[in-house]
Amino acid sequence: MQSIGVYRKEFIAYLEDKSKIKEPINLYQPITYILGLGGKRLRPVLTLMTAEIFGTDYKKALDAALAVEVFHNFSLVHDDIMDDAPLRRGKATVHEKWDINTGILSGDAMLINAYQLFENYEGEVFRSLAKLFSKTAIEVCEGQQYDVDFETRDDVTIPEYLKMIEYKTAVLVGAAMKMGAIVANVSEESQNDIYEFGRNLGIAFQLQDDYLDAFGDPETFGKQVGGDIIENKKTFLFLKSLQYANENEVKELEHLFSIQPEDFTEKIKTAKSIFIESGAAQRTKEEIELYTNKAFEVLKKLPISEEKKMLLQKFGEGLMQREV
Amino acid sequence: MQSIGVYRKEFIAYLEDKSKIKEPINLYQPITYILGLGGKRLRPVLTLMTAEIFGTDYKKALDAALAVEVFHNFSLVHDDIMDDAPLRRGKATVHEKWDINTGILSGDAMLINAYQLFENYEGEVFRSLAKLFSKTAIEVCEGQQYDVDFETRDDVTIPEYLKMIEYKTAVLVGAAMKMGAIVANVSEESQNDIYEFGRNLGIAFQLQDDYLDAFGDPETFGKQVGGDIIENKKTFLFLKSLQYANENEVKELEHLFSIQPEDFTEKIKTAKSIFIESGAAQRTKEEIELYTNKAFEVLKKLPISEEKKMLLQKFGEGLMQREV
Repeated sequence: MQSIGVYRKEFIAYLEDKSKIKEPINLYQPITYILGLGGKRLRPVLTLMTAEIFGTDYKKALDAALAVEVFHNFSLVHDDIMDDAPLRRGKATVHEKWDINTGILSGDAMLINAYQLFENYEGEVFRSLAKLFSKTAIEVCEGQQYDVDFETRDDVTIPEYLKMIEYKTAVLVGAAMKMGAIVANVSEESQNDIYEFGRNLGIAFQLQDDYLDAFGDPETFGKQVGGDIIENKKTFLFLKSLQYANENEVKELEHLFSIQPEDFTEKIKTAKSIFIESGAAQRTKEEIELYTNKAFEVLKKLPISEEKKMLLQKFGEGLMQREV
Repeated sequence: MQSIGVYRKEFIAYLEDKSKIKEPINLYQPITYILGLGGKRLRPVLTLMTAEIFGTDYKKALDAALAVEVFHNFSLVHDDIMDDAPLRRGKATVHEKWDINTGILSGDAMLINAYQLFENYEGEVFRSLAKLFSKTAIEVCEGQQYDVDFETRDDVTIPEYLKMIEYKTAVLVGAAMKMGAIVANVSEESQNDIYEFGRNLGIAFQLQDDYLDAFGDPETFGKQVGGDIIENKKTFLFLKSLQYANENEVKELEHLFSIQPEDFTEKIKTAKSIFIESGAAQRTKEEIELYTNKAFEVLKKLPISEEKKMLLQKFGEGLMQREV
């Protein structure tokens, strides 16, 4: 087994090798740009790692890993248009640097390019990868649509919210790992188990993102702490508060999440205190633990060495230990 | 063999059967809407017809035909956003009826749905269909990008223009037919021959569209005659005129295609007379005939009955005989 750092380095080298700007330049230049912006490369690293955990040379999984990363970036390009986001990883988004039409068309080409990468696999491996990819991609679209729909709804339930983050984020983590398992040609049972590991970890990760957005350390969180509160985002913390806070707190929270004050210090402070007082913060932590444990539980079933299980668990713990 | 009308009817019945609005409604409703707007259903009919020409029950090709139609409509939804088009087949475009974000996301889902339809085929048929589809889809994106790029260029060459219409329009006609051949499991040679038939016919068809836009009968053409001239579109007629007109005519044409007069009657009249005087109109007609004949030439090689060859030729002639 290689270390995460080696997988990342090898993946980036492969990505750079494959990122040639072709004609028409205005279609392919934005693709090279967004793929070159960096990021943690978490998903492709998971594909490579999973292939090797199941006993296959990780190099065989490079095309599948690249497909996952290209798809992820496709979704960022189109989502950034929809969210009217000016920045991505601290740099101008594609539709800002070029224009919306370029963002749409280059995004489309990326989605197709991702499928083409599977053509480097034969027979049933090709079919399994393409099929899993389509299922995942359509769920990501559905997750994005639910996210959009929720903005204008005030009756979003907790199960609906969980389904939204599962589709929008977690299924791609599961699929990234399952692709490594497919390339390694392991049993369908193992493929599905590693998918469940990734999916549950993905949900835990996203819930933690909600939690840290309010309670993270400004020094280490990376984004503005309280950003979701400022933007009136109905996160898990907010929905749980509606469920468990008393009548007055609910009224205050609903009021707070309907205004956009210029100075948001007080708004953030009050919202956070309701998150805590209502017990929502604690319940969110418990939910994160629930999904993390679900992920670790699946590991037990896998037909791999204890050493490798420990590796996956450590990776999961590493992901979840960014809270401070 | 069935008649074109039967293929169309059967295809529409299949399409309607498969068009169920699922959750999230805001993602799937626009898809059902655009697919239900009608149109000639030319491409899926070609897929069904080709399967039967090669001796296979056309019903086996219904999913491939649907994939072609779903992809075609995906490209319409995204192109209509890029062109800021309010109407499609006389009805509001998706981004007009909903909004741009809906158009982007529903379009993305359609592209993925098209791939999923191939999952109804086994083994190598699945692989061949998906591979051909990806190659074609990426060419359609490239063709769209060339079309966008050409708007702001004044040095577009005839070969560049031909490549643009080939990619943007003709390859999908070729691919629609080749998919029927793939489903019918014929030799690769026959697959490629029928692709060439469709591709050349597609180029001829698009050139004819350029021609009819200026010289078509207002009663039967469907679109506004002179529309390309009004919009200063550098069509084949325009590019051929630049090549063959005398210095004064070129100057006048370039001036005409830089202005947007409120009353465009005179502009259309002058442009058309230059198209004719320069010989560009005649040369365009010759080019249309060249590609039509190229298509018919390929037919000779196909291992099918003379009767079926005649059927394909008649279909091609029917397509090309809309000029008046």
